[in-house]
Amino acid sequence: MQSIRLKKTVAIFILGICFLKANSQPSKDSIQIRRIFDMALTDDKAYENLRVLCKNVGNRISGSKAADSAVNWGYNVLKSMWVDTVYKMPITVPCWSRGTVERAYIYHTDLKLNITALGGSIGTNGLLKAHLVVANGIEDLERLGEKGIKGKIVFFNKPFDPRTINGFEAYGACVNQRYAGASKAAEFGAVGVLVRSMTHKNDNSPHTGSMGYTNEANKIPAAAISTEHADLLIEQLKLKPTLRVALRMNCKTLPDKESFNVIAEIKGETEPETIITVGGHLDSWDIGEGAHDDGAGIVHSIELLRLMRANGYRPKHTIRVVLFMNEENGNRGGKGYAQWVKDRGEKHLMALESDGGGHTPRGFGISAPDSVYNIIVGYRSILEPYGCHVFKKSEWGGGVDINPLKLDSELTINPNMILLGFMPDSQRYFDFHHAKTDVFENVHKRELEMGAGAIGAIVYLIDKHF
Amino acid sequence: MQSIRLKKTVAIFILGICFLKANSQPSKDSIQIRRIFDMALTDDKAYENLRVLCKNVGNRISGSKAADSAVNWGYNVLKSMWVDTVYKMPITVPCWSRGTVERAYIYHTDLKLNITALGGSIGTNGLLKAHLVVANGIEDLERLGEKGIKGKIVFFNKPFDPRTINGFEAYGACVNQRYAGASKAAEFGAVGVLVRSMTHKNDNSPHTGSMGYTNEANKIPAAAISTEHADLLIEQLKLKPTLRVALRMNCKTLPDKESFNVIAEIKGETEPETIITVGGHLDSWDIGEGAHDDGAGIVHSIELLRLMRANGYRPKHTIRVVLFMNEENGNRGGKGYAQWVKDRGEKHLMALESDGGGHTPRGFGISAPDSVYNIIVGYRSILEPYGCHVFKKSEWGGGVDINPLKLDSELTINPNMILLGFMPDSQRYFDFHHAKTDVFENVHKRELEMGAGAIGAIVYLIDKHF
Repeated sequence: MQSIRLKKTVAIFILGICFLKANSQPSKDSIQIRRIFDMALTDDKAYENLRVLCKNVGNRISGSKAADSAVNWGYNVLKSMWVDTVYKMPITVPCWSRGTVERAYIYHTDLKLNITALGGSIGTNGLLKAHLVVANGIEDLERLGEKGIKGKIVFFNKPFDPRTINGFEAYGACVNQRYAGASKAAEFGAVGVLVRSMTHKNDNSPHTGSMGYTNEANKIPAAAISTEHADLLIEQLKLKPTLRVALRMNCKTLPDKESFNVIAEIKGETEPETIITVGGHLDSWDIGEGAHDDGAGIVHSIELLRLMRANGYRPKHTIRVVLFMNEENGNRGGKGYAQWVKDRGEKHLMALESDGGGHTPRGFGISAPDSVYNIIVGYRSILEPYGCHVFKKSEWGGGVDINPLKLDSELTINPNMILLGFMPDSQRYFDFHHAKTDVFENVHKRELEMGAGAIGAIVYLIDKHF
Repeated sequence: MQSIRLKKTVAIFILGICFLKANSQPSKDSIQIRRIFDMALTDDKAYENLRVLCKNVGNRISGSKAADSAVNWGYNVLKSMWVDTVYKMPITVPCWSRGTVERAYIYHTDLKLNITALGGSIGTNGLLKAHLVVANGIEDLERLGEKGIKGKIVFFNKPFDPRTINGFEAYGACVNQRYAGASKAAEFGAVGVLVRSMTHKNDNSPHTGSMGYTNEANKIPAAAISTEHADLLIEQLKLKPTLRVALRMNCKTLPDKESFNVIAEIKGETEPETIITVGGHLDSWDIGEGAHDDGAGIVHSIELLRLMRANGYRPKHTIRVVLFMNEENGNRGGKGYAQWVKDRGEKHLMALESDGGGHTPRGFGISAPDSVYNIIVGYRSILEPYGCHVFKKSEWGGGVDINPLKLDSELTINPNMILLGFMPDSQRYFDFHHAKTDVFENVHKRELEMGAGAIGAIVYLIDKHF
């Protein structure tokens, strides 16, 4: 025992020296970051902005009137902030309507199932009745084969793995059944799909989300079912494997509409031609207020400008806040923005996205060259007092809206740019994600404000030291 | 810029090497910790135990029938777990009753104020009517002086500082007005005290908590007022500084009663005479279910035994779980336990307390000699995947119940023992603390389970490597 202890003590001693080294940030930085958090935590602005966005603008799917209101709201809020420029960037967005009917039940019984159409799904064109076949994720379809699937509704029931610590990773491991399940199942002759809601939680709210068809000629309807009713359905299938589910939905896709990304800038003092983009997305799903997804990211981004202004901080680089449109079902805002950046020949140092909700900040996912990553990891000790000092190398970029700036092979604007994804605590996020429970009341004021402080701090550090 | 970048790169490179060193824990540890978390996250036991404690046993202030039920419940749960020993350790606890009447209003108006007696307070003996004097904390009394205070109710209105990141530190900075305010104010001739509730939140639930009298001959009644009504009262005082508050409470202290700490042990394999104590407290305030405070700590502690047993892990040292009684208003359980440990001449390696609620784990506060502290900090990297890797040197020990084992000057059992305080995220804790909102529904299942995993992991590491 003693020898293990000794070895560890030596290792720790060296580690300690290194921490001291990393700790020797200029104290100016500590003071500035303390100020940023003080301001974020003592003003109700971010929380009040979120309230107005959730309660006055409300549920705002791309192409809806509420999405138009969100654009105007964002534009007016940014205009009121004494920044250098505010403008709307036109884009064309898809327009999908849930319609007026969403209903599912076990045929010949009064057992109703809580379902909601997946965004992008076609309707059922009347009542669709079919037997079920249960698939444990999209990778289970081959096993079932055309014989097991043809003429049936595929019930994708792969759950979140509770052992996966990070909620986003648990989501990533089964979301393909939601996004691509319908087209895959259609290849085997399925007539529809039901998908277990993407959440850890046992509850009775179905969680919607985007799906896409790969074959225009072979579209089948797709709906999410609440986790409680997914479990109920499994039980019922055990009792009666030949039961049929009846499904009626009249959702449909309408013609594209014009919409906007909303953009505001504080011009950089010494390197105004180099941009730092920070954003979230304005649109939400139609069934919730989009409080965590992504009202939080929107007010975090707006708050960044307020914190800089109130702090009298003049950035070196141009800080550009982008309120993206259409992240949820098309990413036209993110792609359009990247194309626009490319067309203008703009130089980007970094882009940061907040689209992980409004919970307590833990840190940031980083996509950057190793040398840059290592510099950012050096900020750990200065951020530790605020608890937002976990840095993770990210394989997937920084977020759906900003990834095209770096990862779109047709654009490749700057393969060395820094992408940061804000990482709040992820344990509760999927309780609300894409569900009617994603409302203002489920965002915690201090946690939201801490997120704004964390984003303010990292943007300050990178603007200053790069 | 470039030179700063280079220096940082070198520093980070060294830091990187050190992390690799720290990372080179035997993989056996990683496997064991992964198992602990897997088990914590895939079994509903901890959450179900919490539900039963909150809903079936319920609010359980020391000396109450519910506290007796809690003792029996804890004993039976531990008995069912195939541990080596379960026993009840008798202690005598204070017995305070809130009585049947708690009422406050602005005299000659119908403006009711939401108040609740502080635990230990005397009643008002009829209707107490008096003018108010506002004090910004206990340190403000000198300034107000006897002239400003005599014959009045002191309204302690020092709020939580929202800039303080850690909720427990914000609490620590003003809780003395709740605990000692009445006796201090009585020295200046006050006839009662109202204390702003100890919470960040603007809400209308008063938060109770313990208070004590230093002078038996000069006791005045003390009540907590909700933060919303504290603010209302300030507004009303601006309009009419001479307003009077009327207060009626019939709370009282009854004779002491017998109660118990409940104790269970898994005997150590190679060093059975050396103890690791892990605990939380069984009692709660009478106005809430004590779900975060401290049902979470109780089920965390019980879960530790389950995780060890289910994992087939035989500890080196004796693992002793203590469900302490009377943390809230007397700490007779903690003091009694330390005396008992001393009387038996037992050797303690470590004690860990979970009394910070059931939110996502962040890490541990550590009170230990530097050499030991540094070894524990070396576990950072192995715990980082679980997000519970923040270690803070603690000035105040590990928790009220376990501190007497080390910090009670009359006992001084082992000044070198390790005290660990479990540190969950603290942003939401004081929303519920000592209020009627501290109920099972406000504890998040996965967050609770993550806490059990974190405690399981650190106890495993220390048991194995010390």
